[in-house]
Amino acid sequence: MLTALTAPTTTAPPAAAPPRVTRADAQAALDAKTKPLGALGRLERLAARLAVAQQTLAPHVERAHVAVFAADHGVAAEGVSAYPSAVTREMTRNFAAGGAAVCVLARAAGCALEVVDVGVDAEPDDLPGVVHAKVRRGSRNLLREAAMSPAECDAALAAGRAAAARAAAAGADALVPGEMGIGNTTSAAALASALTGAPPAVTVGRGTGVDDERLAHKRDVVARALARHGLGGLTDAPRAPDPALARRALECVGGLEIAAMAGAALEGARRGLVVVVDGYIATAAALAAAHLDPAALPVLVFAHRSAEPGHGAALAAFVALGLEAEDAAPVFDLGLRLGEATGGVLAVPVLRAAARVLGEMATFAEAGVSGAA
Amino acid sequence: MLTALTAPTTTAPPAAAPPRVTRADAQAALDAKTKPLGALGRLERLAARLAVAQQTLAPHVERAHVAVFAADHGVAAEGVSAYPSAVTREMTRNFAAGGAAVCVLARAAGCALEVVDVGVDAEPDDLPGVVHAKVRRGSRNLLREAAMSPAECDAALAAGRAAAARAAAAGADALVPGEMGIGNTTSAAALASALTGAPPAVTVGRGTGVDDERLAHKRDVVARALARHGLGGLTDAPRAPDPALARRALECVGGLEIAAMAGAALEGARRGLVVVVDGYIATAAALAAAHLDPAALPVLVFAHRSAEPGHGAALAAFVALGLEAEDAAPVFDLGLRLGEATGGVLAVPVLRAAARVLGEMATFAEAGVSGAA
Repeated sequence: MLTALTAPTTTAPPAAAPPRVTRADAQAALDAKTKPLGALGRLERLAARLAVAQQTLAPHVERAHVAVFAADHGVAAEGVSAYPSAVTREMTRNFAAGGAAVCVLARAAGCALEVVDVGVDAEPDDLPGVVHAKVRRGSRNLLREAAMSPAECDAALAAGRAAAARAAAAGADALVPGEMGIGNTTSAAALASALTGAPPAVTVGRGTGVDDERLAHKRDVVARALARHGLGGLTDAPRAPDPALARRALECVGGLEIAAMAGAALEGARRGLVVVVDGYIATAAALAAAHLDPAALPVLVFAHRSAEPGHGAALAAFVALGLEAEDAAPVFDLGLRLGEATGGVLAVPVLRAAARVLGEMATFAEAGVSGAA
Repeated sequence: MLTALTAPTTTAPPAAAPPRVTRADAQAALDAKTKPLGALGRLERLAARLAVAQQTLAPHVERAHVAVFAADHGVAAEGVSAYPSAVTREMTRNFAAGGAAVCVLARAAGCALEVVDVGVDAEPDDLPGVVHAKVRRGSRNLLREAAMSPAECDAALAAGRAAAARAAAAGADALVPGEMGIGNTTSAAALASALTGAPPAVTVGRGTGVDDERLAHKRDVVARALARHGLGGLTDAPRAPDPALARRALECVGGLEIAAMAGAALEGARRGLVVVVDGYIATAAALAAAHLDPAALPVLVFAHRSAEPGHGAALAAFVALGLEAEDAAPVFDLGLRLGEATGGVLAVPVLRAAARVLGEMATFAEAGVSGAA
């Protein structure tokens, strides 16, 4: 009988659906470990989240892949950044050559890294060692028109999805999306305002370091862009996923690399990767992703509290979508304001440690240790 | 000529004394890296501290050694802990077997680990895989008499120094002292009160998790111990090193493993190791070390803000001794309250990353990246 060839050699009951690993299961396993209850603090919470995200009581963050998406921004023409647009191209080359901060941190943390051009204003030949997925040479100026056409937004999302698929195919268990793009804190701020209702006074910060005058100008640019695109109407973050709003906000005020990060988060979630969310820009992208598909929520781990004032509003929007407040709180705050995925990469060893606590620590019973009196 | 055999083959000027590496030198090197000024936040501050501690613009935290010192405490007989004293012996065995939290975290962070018995109430044969440096089977009950005789305190300090020397001989560039000892938050609180002037209401916390009633009792025990030993007279931390006070406090209310941690910090500093200070108990030990020899101050890096309320007072005492406030602030706060060196080990990858930023990141000139407009 042909079917017998693939049947198990021993008689077994029909396979049941594998039991779902819940947070309570993970906490019970942690409580049996040789330590006072809760003594590993946030590490325990992270371990439990990883267990739920990966559906195993032996979660793992051993092979984290960093994908840095680079693109230029038409809105840079409005003078919103302290740096010229040429820096996007120059830094993209620096990423590929291994000299940028995220490269150094990724090597230190044992992460693989790839650099994806989704919209740098440069010829592909000018960017050696970079994955070429250019949609166009920079997003359009979001103050004057939609930053992307629907097709361009689709292409940027797809470029991000493809990076997540490559990481998964290479055996990654975690993905850290990062970004480079002169002008992109302006785009992220507009996106955050559109999705949270927080005004530019909250969502617009100094980015890489603009002075007071340029900060006021940047806020004005974001306010006018929101008004132009009809995206300034909210007063509070939606408490239910609003994929249409997220899609329109991405197209109108997003950036190519921001849409790519959203795509990476969506595909990473679909493939069971833990998605480590860097700072403000990555959080804005992840918020768009969570509205597009809330199934991504359980795999998102927030790494670093950005110095940008809008980050808190963006994180609170995840609570509005149903995440518990403690799970929407970043792992740490080291005062970083660089992007590139640097905060995400710094969190990887903490997540690795948290996962191993669940998988490797001895229980009281295994180690023969007495419990509390 | 015999001397010619070892002389350089090319003519060189006589070696001058190597220039001292200052914090300003390190910050200048950081400012030339391809990132906005200060964009790596606390990582830059840490990198500069490491550069000064190691006297190089290419600092490194690549080979961190963890030394967990274990000892029992006579004061445990007063009912100050939620756990029975037997747990010290049982956990020491768990450390040696690799099942404890610090073992898991050390493996995850690529740290070597040794476990040193300086005073566990157990026969050496009962502690396989442990370095034997037992001074006595537990410190004396600090509520009734001095916890250590002068000779016992010397022996415990020497055991810590020996561990640092072993680490240095094995090529370590950083040392993470940790501790295990049922009752040792009581000892650490008394030491912190003695060296900072903060009352037991501030320095005594719940340790591994005592209830309200036992917390009040623990505070009473510490208050009475300070009075008995004449150590409660300060109202503020000394603003100059007071080695006599530190020595007397260690003997009267310290613990064998706490004295060993102080010795490890002192010898680590002498040998140019970065000394990563875990949580509250490690900070109390480091404070004693800083009073015994303030030359240790530059190599101390505070890893983790403890949930114990006295930790802040102990950290502030380092500022009184001359450390800048930012350098007396722990790298992060993950809500840990376990000890063992767990917080210290979690900080190692952050320190490794900070060091590599200085050594490995490309400069604007090297990478051909434009500066701010």
